[in-house]
Amino acid sequence: MKRYERHADSIAELIHSGALRPGERLPSVREASRARGISPSTVFQAYYLLEAQGLIHARPRSGYYVTARMPPAAGLRSGEPNPSQPRNSSTEVAVSELVFDVLGSARERSLVPLGSAFPGLELFPLKRLARCLSSGMRRLDPWDIVQSLSLGDARLRQQIALRYGLHGVAVHADEVIVTNGAMEALNLCLEAVTRPGDVVAVESPTFYAALQALERRNLQALEIATHPRDGIDLAALAHALERHPVRACWLMPSFQNPLGSLMPENRKRELVALLARHQVPLIEDDVYGELHFAPRRPPPAKAFDAEGLVMHCSSFTKCLAPGYRVGWVAAGRFAIAVERLKLMTTLATATPSQQAVSEYLAQGGYERHLRQLRSSLARQQDRALAAIARHFPAGTRVSRPEGGYFVWVELPAGTNALALHRKALEHGISLAPGQIFSADQRFAHCVRINYGHPAHSGFDEALRVVGELATRLTPDA
Amino acid sequence: MKRYERHADSIAELIHSGALRPGERLPSVREASRARGISPSTVFQAYYLLEAQGLIHARPRSGYYVTARMPPAAGLRSGEPNPSQPRNSSTEVAVSELVFDVLGSARERSLVPLGSAFPGLELFPLKRLARCLSSGMRRLDPWDIVQSLSLGDARLRQQIALRYGLHGVAVHADEVIVTNGAMEALNLCLEAVTRPGDVVAVESPTFYAALQALERRNLQALEIATHPRDGIDLAALAHALERHPVRACWLMPSFQNPLGSLMPENRKRELVALLARHQVPLIEDDVYGELHFAPRRPPPAKAFDAEGLVMHCSSFTKCLAPGYRVGWVAAGRFAIAVERLKLMTTLATATPSQQAVSEYLAQGGYERHLRQLRSSLARQQDRALAAIARHFPAGTRVSRPEGGYFVWVELPAGTNALALHRKALEHGISLAPGQIFSADQRFAHCVRINYGHPAHSGFDEALRVVGELATRLTPDA
Repeated sequence: MKRYERHADSIAELIHSGALRPGERLPSVREASRARGISPSTVFQAYYLLEAQGLIHARPRSGYYVTARMPPAAGLRSGEPNPSQPRNSSTEVAVSELVFDVLGSARERSLVPLGSAFPGLELFPLKRLARCLSSGMRRLDPWDIVQSLSLGDARLRQQIALRYGLHGVAVHADEVIVTNGAMEALNLCLEAVTRPGDVVAVESPTFYAALQALERRNLQALEIATHPRDGIDLAALAHALERHPVRACWLMPSFQNPLGSLMPENRKRELVALLARHQVPLIEDDVYGELHFAPRRPPPAKAFDAEGLVMHCSSFTKCLAPGYRVGWVAAGRFAIAVERLKLMTTLATATPSQQAVSEYLAQGGYERHLRQLRSSLARQQDRALAAIARHFPAGTRVSRPEGGYFVWVELPAGTNALALHRKALEHGISLAPGQIFSADQRFAHCVRINYGHPAHSGFDEALRVVGELATRLTPDA
Repeated sequence: MKRYERHADSIAELIHSGALRPGERLPSVREASRARGISPSTVFQAYYLLEAQGLIHARPRSGYYVTARMPPAAGLRSGEPNPSQPRNSSTEVAVSELVFDVLGSARERSLVPLGSAFPGLELFPLKRLARCLSSGMRRLDPWDIVQSLSLGDARLRQQIALRYGLHGVAVHADEVIVTNGAMEALNLCLEAVTRPGDVVAVESPTFYAALQALERRNLQALEIATHPRDGIDLAALAHALERHPVRACWLMPSFQNPLGSLMPENRKRELVALLARHQVPLIEDDVYGELHFAPRRPPPAKAFDAEGLVMHCSSFTKCLAPGYRVGWVAAGRFAIAVERLKLMTTLATATPSQQAVSEYLAQGGYERHLRQLRSSLARQQDRALAAIARHFPAGTRVSRPEGGYFVWVELPAGTNALALHRKALEHGISLAPGQIFSADQRFAHCVRINYGHPAHSGFDEALRVVGELATRLTPDA
């Protein structure tokens, strides 16, 4: 443990023990440096770390303050949602119509976007990105436009490989293919390793876009029991791999959408080993991996992949550059197959977008932006959980993810989330009802709530309204 | 006929009759205006038209000069290539490996890119586009990033609809979906109207990416006889529609790749009527439609579509913005299906690219750029045809397209274009051998030559070398 980590830990302990209380101001960097006999930069690093953990926050020209944050289980009347119990058979998927219906109705600007899939745009350095776009395009050799066909811009791929290295994952730039967002990466991976009719194992509940992708390719979904905190149940997965001809897994081991679950490191390692024994490829959707509230980025499953079976997909859409459509995949042994499919799908990823992101990364400051983003999301999660605890009906259970910007809310049994979604729309609020997160619509009493819009003035009020509507829809009420 | 068109015609006649000879200077605008009693702007318009036709060209600060251009059939020892005679059965496609092999080998910067699919980057206003990119992003409301999901930027879609109107095609902005280049549009259309195993009618020879798309989706290709000047043989297509369960057509009615053929207007009308009788959708690939050498843009088949059966796909890649990946489709009755597939494939098209193109179109000057581009390509085609006539073996036939930047060269029977391609690579020249343009590799003695690189210093010498290599490979030589 480094010196700044030790210093951060000692402060964290003071906060958790209640010795330092919410709203209290921390010593200034100079004071702390003098009092502890450590360098100002060590204090700074410690404060940054605590900020990323969501324990403290900076006020401009004033200093650092302890954030009002609840301990993990506080405020939830009935604790976290139950682990899912999907049936043990694969099933055809026909959820797309419902998904389009729900998403289509939720796209109005005037709505409070609790059902949105995106965090608030005010969280991103869009102005600086636009400047990077300009300077990146100015220094571009036009030949690079042709040269970077399909695989993507060489500098950007190098930068992505470097970031893997930073997090202890060995990925060579040659393995990285830049895509039109993670969505394209995931679809290409799925196409590279399956044929129509194949069985694909997914979490339960599942990100609806994964279900749509299966439906589109006529694949069978095999939903695996998943814990709202720890992610997919490895025993259940092992059992499924014995009994079903599973051709691939499509999973989100870090901050799963919609649960927010995070597989601990050792379980990710087990997952990769289990799949390697069965020689089943893993399509790893890791678009939220950078949005961790704990000090360190959770390693992706890819970190434990010795056989090239893990296709790690991510993007800059949720951490840096919404609308730029810059994603990528490190596709392991399937890299050439994916590259060829990419050539046939969209040929290449837009040059200006790649230049903007690459220039931004080259100029530095990405880590700083990420720290602010994480800290903002962590505070905002507290706000959401507090409002849910206050306003939602008795018996409501809710996940408390350690990253991302979704919570998964399990309403009392018998509540119809689709009905709640429609009622909420009438009140100018969107929701993501549980029905769209499963091939058999088993999560009919659950909703996914997006808390990633801190600047939205109607946020708290919207949670109050949804809580009231839910209370009225609860069968026992 | 308008006054400027009459004036242009009279000059064109003087040129064709030899009264005005290559290299001669035309009267200045002022002289012509005075002598003919017409306004200077009429003279200007006439000169622009003649420039677009490739008959005259401007020299800065000097005036307009007659271009050295051959009459249609001159210089070709044996005339145009023969109409194709594909077999009358549909076939599985397995050409992708060969295509990747050929394209992969041709991507070196040092090569003279006769085999390239792209025109020279020096032909495009890349600097101005980069400026439009900057100003477009400055004035962007971030909300538009979310709002324009899937369908694309509203202003850009409006501008595309307006350009349809300009060319006499009624397309509403609501029907337009912006895609990651035409490639994505074409693939989405194919997916929207076919199921694995279906039969799709294509031209013969066929653009290799169409063959790859069929192969990828396990579709059967039914290659239809195609004339190197007039395009697909409608009698043959009618016959095929009677005998085969054709589910869709994928055609390039204007400046077909690789032939360069252009279906006359009345034949396009017949095509649409024929397909309507059979209720077969047409996927119309029209990426070269703007690159016409004749005064007017040839109407797309979409212009005659009363039933919404034509899915018109195009892009700005080949006319304005290579690397920006902005294409679109006007998908008629399939618009909603295509939009949904787009949402599931790449979600959206990159915002910066859309803003750049939209801003460029709003600022004006696109028509002027297109005129210069067309004129440059027309002159360059003459250069290529002259070199082919001079250096290629006796019995060589070559198409003389009225637009685009490819000629299709039919070498003497028995010449192996793949062998020629490999020999040419050794000499630092890429080629597109005929084998990649058919599911049964029947065009083994043909090559597609890209003449769209006017600034390439090695262009003429490369054609000389290829001619010599071809002569050596010709069986009778």
